[in-house]
Amino acid sequence: MSRGSVFILSGPSGSGKDTVLKELFRQHPDLLFSISSITRAMREGEREGEKYHFISREEFEAMLKADELLEYNIYGGNYYGTPRKPVEAAIMAGKNMVIEVDVNGAEKIRCKLPEAVSIFIMPPSFAELKRRLVGRGTESDEQIKIRMQTALDEIRRADEYDYIIVNQDVNTAAAELFTVIDSRRLTAEKQQTIINEVLAEC
Amino acid sequence: MSRGSVFILSGPSGSGKDTVLKELFRQHPDLLFSISSITRAMREGEREGEKYHFISREEFEAMLKADELLEYNIYGGNYYGTPRKPVEAAIMAGKNMVIEVDVNGAEKIRCKLPEAVSIFIMPPSFAELKRRLVGRGTESDEQIKIRMQTALDEIRRADEYDYIIVNQDVNTAAAELFTVIDSRRLTAEKQQTIINEVLAEC
Repeated sequence: MSRGSVFILSGPSGSGKDTVLKELFRQHPDLLFSISSITRAMREGEREGEKYHFISREEFEAMLKADELLEYNIYGGNYYGTPRKPVEAAIMAGKNMVIEVDVNGAEKIRCKLPEAVSIFIMPPSFAELKRRLVGRGTESDEQIKIRMQTALDEIRRADEYDYIIVNQDVNTAAAELFTVIDSRRLTAEKQQTIINEVLAEC
Repeated sequence: MSRGSVFILSGPSGSGKDTVLKELFRQHPDLLFSISSITRAMREGEREGEKYHFISREEFEAMLKADELLEYNIYGGNYYGTPRKPVEAAIMAGKNMVIEVDVNGAEKIRCKLPEAVSIFIMPPSFAELKRRLVGRGTESDEQIKIRMQTALDEIRRADEYDYIIVNQDVNTAAAELFTVIDSRRLTAEKQQTIINEVLAEC
């Protein structure tokens, strides 16, 4: 059996990344999602082990010391990180795993897992990004302004990624994301087993 | 508009490469096929400009002198080559072009077009390859033996390719081939235009 692949997925706030991922996992339940370990309090509607593992600062710092995180960051005084072990287990089991992470996290994971494939989700235009951020209606003008600036900074780094998907329409974007994921199992590296098998017959 | 991509396709006799290509082009008539220039006589059932351009030795040698071939070879005293101009025109027009060529031709094209993506079509097993070659019933034991040896030599070089597709079933293989082709338009390089457009809005 050939090893699984890791797909690093990023996209600015307003790119519609979460909706695209939701559709991808609905259509392909065999894909694995990397669950982040975080130290912030659980919010309404969240569940342990769904998108996050909610752990204590002490537990997080113990993971850090044991080099059990592929990347981590601090937002608002809380730790957010990507545990290494489930990713390695997925690779060994021949499964594909998606890690959702920001551009800085992506950079760190690429260093530790050079064979990982990275994908950036883009909004179709800056006007549309603004429309989506304003449309949420849950944030102040100041908050929206900060999100816009952060989005712009991230889009400027989109060329660090292997693939770029423009999310004009969720279904198309999810299909394109799967095309990228599916194409990886056809690489010569992943297919080495079948070559060896055919040659071993002779 | 972003540039088109070139897909170098190889596979041993008995891999079912031609049937897979036929199905691919039936489903995706927008793909272009590189028509080889050859100096051998036209055979029954062949038509000028379908798979080959039938030209004279003098014309071929003039193309050689003018560096108008991406690769060429001699079989049975006849020239076979891949004209450069239609490939370059396809790239500039943003079209995808498939070039069917043997492992040696693939090596030469990779040198001249390093951005080309190469794909190798494999039979599912050596036993199946043998069955397919013998099943044709048109060749002597000696001819089959030579084809088997050539196929084996080619499969030994399969790892020179970017992608490998195992042709167990024509429809699956054609779909996988299209997945590889389709994934290329999502690479960061091809998507640079949209990044620039979004950033230009700000």
